[in-house]
Amino acid sequence: MSNRVSVYRREHFNAAHRLYNPSWSDEKNTAVFGKCNNHNYHGHNYDLEVKVTGTIDPETGYVMDLKVLSDLINEYVLDILDHKNLNLDIAYFKTVNPTAENICVFIYDILRKKIEENYDLQIRLYETERNYVEYPC
Amino acid sequence: MSNRVSVYRREHFNAAHRLYNPSWSDEKNTAVFGKCNNHNYHGHNYDLEVKVTGTIDPETGYVMDLKVLSDLINEYVLDILDHKNLNLDIAYFKTVNPTAENICVFIYDILRKKIEENYDLQIRLYETERNYVEYPC
Amino acid sequence: MSNRVSVYRREHFNAAHRLYNPSWSDEKNTAVFGKCNNHNYHGHNYDLEVKVTGTIDPETGYVMDLKVLSDLINEYVLDILDHKNLNLDIAYFKTVNPTAENICVFIYDILRKKIEENYDLQIRLYETERNYVEYPC
Amino acid sequence: MSNRVSVYRREHFNAAHRLYNPSWSDEKNTAVFGKCNNHNYHGHNYDLEVKVTGTIDPETGYVMDLKVLSDLINEYVLDILDHKNLNLDIAYFKTVNPTAENICVFIYDILRKKIEENYDLQIRLYETERNYVEYPC
Amino acid sequence: MSNRVSVYRREHFNAAHRLYNPSWSDEKNTAVFGKCNNHNYHGHNYDLEVKVTGTIDPETGYVMDLKVLSDLINEYVLDILDHKNLNLDIAYFKTVNPTAENICVFIYDILRKKIEENYDLQIRLYETERNYVEYPC
Amino acid sequence: MSNRVSVYRREHFNAAHRLYNPSWSDEKNTAVFGKCNNHNYHGHNYDLEVKVTGTIDPETGYVMDLKVLSDLINEYVLDILDHKNLNLDIAYFKTVNPTAENICVFIYDILRKKIEENYDLQIRLYETERNYVEYPC
Repeated sequence: MSNRVSVYRREHFNAAHRLYNPSWSDEKNTAVFGKCNNHNYHGHNYDLEVKVTGTIDPETGYVMDLKVLSDLINEYVLDILDHKNLNLDIAYFKTVNPTAENICVFIYDILRKKIEENYDLQIRLYETERNYVEYPC
Repeated sequence: MSNRVSVYRREHFNAAHRLYNPSWSDEKNTAVFGKCNNHNYHGHNYDLEVKVTGTIDPETGYVMDLKVLSDLINEYVLDILDHKNLNLDIAYFKTVNPTAENICVFIYDILRKKIEENYDLQIRLYETERNYVEYPC
Repeated sequence: MSNRVSVYRREHFNAAHRLYNPSWSDEKNTAVFGKCNNHNYHGHNYDLEVKVTGTIDPETGYVMDLKVLSDLINEYVLDILDHKNLNLDIAYFKTVNPTAENICVFIYDILRKKIEENYDLQIRLYETERNYVEYPC
Repeated sequence: MSNRVSVYRREHFNAAHRLYNPSWSDEKNTAVFGKCNNHNYHGHNYDLEVKVTGTIDPETGYVMDLKVLSDLINEYVLDILDHKNLNLDIAYFKTVNPTAENICVFIYDILRKKIEENYDLQIRLYETERNYVEYPC
Repeated sequence: MSNRVSVYRREHFNAAHRLYNPSWSDEKNTAVFGKCNNHNYHGHNYDLEVKVTGTIDPETGYVMDLKVLSDLINEYVLDILDHKNLNLDIAYFKTVNPTAENICVFIYDILRKKIEENYDLQIRLYETERNYVEYPC
Repeated sequence: MSNRVSVYRREHFNAAHRLYNPSWSDEKNTAVFGKCNNHNYHGHNYDLEVKVTGTIDPETGYVMDLKVLSDLINEYVLDILDHKNLNLDIAYFKTVNPTAENICVFIYDILRKKIEENYDLQIRLYETERNYVEYPC
């Protein structure tokens, strides 16, 4: 059995978005995305859970200082996404549909570069209390 | 002591909004509303709690059938606000800033007309888990 | 302004019940109570919030010892209602429909006799996270 | 590392049940199942979390449309279990004890047939906020 | 009916404390306060809910800017109480038992001086999810 | 696919602690542990989730009786940690820094000896709603 421990940090952001595929007709977008395709956008309180797995540093008793992890999330994720319109304000989502799945992968790709490779990383993103996604599995 | 009982029904909706005062400069809007003034909107999962106070009907044991209350909220509030841009899609918020306070009063005014006068009515609206408002007090 | 303080204690119980009015036809019971009228009962995790208001005892710093309040709730309410069928196991609900409203009043009437009169008492009962009631108001 | 993403949908149902083994004496049933063996049943608000794992469809940005998943859960699970007495109303639980573990496997077996094989499926069932189960592991 | 609206802001702090009355014997302190009298302290995650009631400013749509309220709470309450030992680090609790009731009144007295008199103020303090207090009532 | 099922039991305890490394200077301890290094301790409501994985006993329908698991946790973990000062009252934490990671491993090591080897065991410990850890992974 591994002696690795996972640590989790939960953060929040609020954003607007609209789901649609620009190569489809309005009719098909409405059929597939329903209310989520509202032209003028709607929005969510996103709950973001970042899981980092590693070994305990015997000097500190930490796998990773959660204050450091929180600062990384704030600087590289929340400062970009919080109180934004994902479709209009984030270049990446001009060509990628901002579903919870795609936002989750986007956040993972940002944080993976900021966290040393000896740590495993997993992202869970809650779009609502009833709908949420996780990557990687 | 009154023999009145309060019943509560909680519903949810998701919407985009932007806070600003059109009679102010951009600078003043940013100074007052900060990130909430983002031109392209941001959004929230709104949690709506509707409190109705009355006497228990001895035939049913209900103050008010919460299924009926839920249907009223869905028909007259959620069908209007859910998955919408409050500033662009709701006529009332073209001239009224869609703060939680103003949305709460807006919802109260709608439901007050749909619920008989012998019932008291109070609305609580959660914009986030940490910011919420209540009307009337 | 009063110098009174409210203290709250939250407890839980699980029970089965069925809603119906024995003086009505099956058709009317189904029309009014819908799924809640299932002949074989259904059930809930009830969340019970007991609010007691009084003045702070300068010797203890307590309005009321919440351990004492918890013991009262356990002895006089939970031992009677927890893991029971409200319609079949509780004499009171053989003639009174066990709606959340009526259960709330039932609990209030029990606890009111056990808590000294200089304390105010209010009961909130959650039948689900979205449906709850409060008495008195 | 896999590029698979998990999506979760949470639903609710309320049901009555009683735990017992019909081949045991009343004494042994009471000794093993305690209050959960109450002859007249008790009940719960069950919280159901369905996790589906697959790859993101590049056309929609979805692993699986959570509205479709919700509809499947409603049609094949909630319409059968919600507001029911598990022991009396569900044929399967006439011979299988309706513990959280067995209900969880029952739900998994239903949904596994309704969700394409290229998706992984896992069910978590909350009987209370403090007691819950997960299958498969 | 008043046109006043309540706005709520929720904050958190973590602190250690011990309950006891220095004029009592060890035996009496243990009898009254039980485990909460542990000589070496124990601790809590306190959840603080601040409710401010006033009229909506027609220029902003706010009763009070919740960012301003949050800053007041942080500066005058959390900077004093967070990550502290209430008995040892806070002069006021050298002579006052740091029960939830007394902490709640202490916080109210601080914030009442910082919030204009035309606003009503009420404090709710959660010591645990099951034990909480409110002042004034 | 395995036919194993996981069962979870959630419990709570309240404790004080202080984070520091006795071989470091005060300056370094403050630089690394910040507010968590307060000499007089601070505290938390710890939420403890114990996950046990095994096969369903066909006689009971249980993987493990959660009442039995709850009793084990209460006897061997909560009676030791609840309402205690981790640094002063628990011998183990006189030489090990009581971070969430180290507390989680401490609890695992206790419970692993009390639960039969054919069961898998995993511990999740919430220090706050936003900071939590899990072991083993």
